[in-house]
Amino acid sequence: MTERYKRGVARQTELGATRTEAYDALADIAPDLSRLAVEFAYGDVHARPGLDAARRELVVIGALITLGGVEPQLRAHLETALNAGLRPGELVEAIMQALPYAGFPRVFGAMTLARQVLDARGLLPVRPAGTDAIGP
Amino acid sequence: MTERYKRGVARQTELGATRTEAYDALADIAPDLSRLAVEFAYGDVHARPGLDAARRELVVIGALITLGGVEPQLRAHLETALNAGLRPGELVEAIMQALPYAGFPRVFGAMTLARQVLDARGLLPVRPAGTDAIGP
Amino acid sequence: MTERYKRGVARQTELGATRTEAYDALADIAPDLSRLAVEFAYGDVHARPGLDAARRELVVIGALITLGGVEPQLRAHLETALNAGLRPGELVEAIMQALPYAGFPRVFGAMTLARQVLDARGLLPVRPAGTDAIGP
Amino acid sequence: MTERYKRGVARQTELGATRTEAYDALADIAPDLSRLAVEFAYGDVHARPGLDAARRELVVIGALITLGGVEPQLRAHLETALNAGLRPGELVEAIMQALPYAGFPRVFGAMTLARQVLDARGLLPVRPAGTDAIGP
Amino acid sequence: MTERYKRGVARQTELGATRTEAYDALADIAPDLSRLAVEFAYGDVHARPGLDAARRELVVIGALITLGGVEPQLRAHLETALNAGLRPGELVEAIMQALPYAGFPRVFGAMTLARQVLDARGLLPVRPAGTDAIGP
Amino acid sequence: MTERYKRGVARQTELGATRTEAYDALADIAPDLSRLAVEFAYGDVHARPGLDAARRELVVIGALITLGGVEPQLRAHLETALNAGLRPGELVEAIMQALPYAGFPRVFGAMTLARQVLDARGLLPVRPAGTDAIGP
Repeated sequence: MTERYKRGVARQTELGATRTEAYDALADIAPDLSRLAVEFAYGDVHARPGLDAARRELVVIGALITLGGVEPQLRAHLETALNAGLRPGELVEAIMQALPYAGFPRVFGAMTLARQVLDARGLLPVRPAGTDAIGP
Repeated sequence: MTERYKRGVARQTELGATRTEAYDALADIAPDLSRLAVEFAYGDVHARPGLDAARRELVVIGALITLGGVEPQLRAHLETALNAGLRPGELVEAIMQALPYAGFPRVFGAMTLARQVLDARGLLPVRPAGTDAIGP
Repeated sequence: MTERYKRGVARQTELGATRTEAYDALADIAPDLSRLAVEFAYGDVHARPGLDAARRELVVIGALITLGGVEPQLRAHLETALNAGLRPGELVEAIMQALPYAGFPRVFGAMTLARQVLDARGLLPVRPAGTDAIGP
Repeated sequence: MTERYKRGVARQTELGATRTEAYDALADIAPDLSRLAVEFAYGDVHARPGLDAARRELVVIGALITLGGVEPQLRAHLETALNAGLRPGELVEAIMQALPYAGFPRVFGAMTLARQVLDARGLLPVRPAGTDAIGP
Repeated sequence: MTERYKRGVARQTELGATRTEAYDALADIAPDLSRLAVEFAYGDVHARPGLDAARRELVVIGALITLGGVEPQLRAHLETALNAGLRPGELVEAIMQALPYAGFPRVFGAMTLARQVLDARGLLPVRPAGTDAIGP
Repeated sequence: MTERYKRGVARQTELGATRTEAYDALADIAPDLSRLAVEFAYGDVHARPGLDAARRELVVIGALITLGGVEPQLRAHLETALNAGLRPGELVEAIMQALPYAGFPRVFGAMTLARQVLDARGLLPVRPAGTDAIGP
């Protein structure tokens, strides 16, 4: 077990991001894929100093919403973002912020996933700090 | 001039994000496009409370890196992110964080733009808070 | 309720495009998202003069097929296109027209959705005005 | 020369879409690519009955804006759309219609290309049939 | 029935790639779509000499992983790749090779599909020729 | 210098893929990015056994064509593919094979780059093993 792997697992554990189930499911076809995810995505990249975990997750959420078609990973990172300290209202705002760049369909899909994640945690309803009071 | 437009311009001004030149260039073909950018992207979305401007820019940067082929807008948002208080080393880390999701080619492109932006501001070299000291 | 919202609802009603169910599902997490969809996508953009609704839907269909991974929205816009006056054979041709640009997999996915939409309306079979008679 | 090729050339000629220069540039590496473009994209698809050329171009424009990074082809199809009878104001509206789905950066890029195309034809300024008069 | 169609069917048959079910499902809406898939994708392109079928499938797999949201087609081409002679371990490596360019989420999705395909053929577990022995 | 880095550099050297210039250009902003490219993309992934370098490049070419907007990297991998033993005609066929999945615009862009690469090596004209003789 490499230092990078240990560092990656430590980061995942800290973030509650250990995707054990998804990784185990590929154990009989591509065990190296899960190992590389831990070593590279978490050990080499996410565990880097210089930007805290919650702000790293904002970049990831922007990327995954735009990419599209990656629901399991987007759901996992919405969980991670909450674990990293982002509050429900902040998560909602982060998804809203993708609107002018990734468009409505991608954002509707992401918000639907976020709703499921927050619902499972008993965190609904969210009162987004919206523009209602200051609308035209 | 609507409240939304005023709110959008105020937000852009606060962020040093007024893309006057790009907007003027389309004045004789689609003046409404620039107006909608101000009203919607800034007045309706970016100016929302609940998430500060720097963290909003992290979502946008994740989205634009992944989208690809939008250099003028990515460059503008790298500027905005710095104006919103992100430090050079944090900007570099934000771009690095897109690696496992958007891949190396998109990230190399984005980092090349970031280098131009930081160079023009006399902010190079950046000493990224890397993993050098803790590598295997 | 803003003028833009009223204009958006009017446009959606005219097009039979009120996505009430999808909007309601997000009411406890992001009510502003549905409001912005009505105000911006319909009130600001779709309701603009200068291009009729059916031709606007052709642009949207080209965009959504290419984007990929947005089945609920693509299905909704296939419905809207029919409501706006596009005939079944024209809808099929519009989807076919994306082939050289978005590729076969995206087009097969879109045609499968279109089949479901037309089937539910009792509009199958469609006799596309194909090239059969003029083939090599 | 196949019937499909002849039909494709006829369609391209009718639309003023013969991309002779681009095709010739690849003559010494992949002559079949240009032949397939004529035969498939124009002879098999574009020349199909059931939807007129201008409306086919609306689908193509929606697809190419969303795809991104295909400026030469987008420019060519903006030309074709005009040749097929779309008026400048309608072309502008078609590009605007992609906003909620492909996002602002893609649309700004497309509008910049459209401006170049219309400028070269002496068709600027365009007075888009906007929402100015009916804004909030 | 054209020569191209016959050539396409012959290629599909040779590769065990006849997607009869998917094609039949669209018979009452767009019979020409399936015909064009056979004629163009197989008769015009895949059946070309100069690159063997297995290596053509590597290009297709790279393309479909990156495109995203095209599971039925990706699954079909994973099957085709095996039929064309690619061994299970080579298929796994091909999917791994997309990691630095298409990112982890797309590759996890593709590997999950590959696992289903190999499982249905009784070809699990695969012992990928990994870097385990030569890790740091 | 890690074993992975050494393995990555060895692979790059073997393939003539050392992108020294591109890497150096980012030395004052993100030296770790180039290091990770060598360690991960080449040391961890490309250097894996089980699939030869030329076939790995076919996956990469399929991915990069589809991704779009990554010309420098696509050009570099077209070079690498040739260095890995792919013949000019095979490279042309590999690009052609992306047509039904990534569409004509992406393939025209890739072929234009390939033409530049082959021209600089004095390898034009290429006589692609086309379907000319067996067309309808």
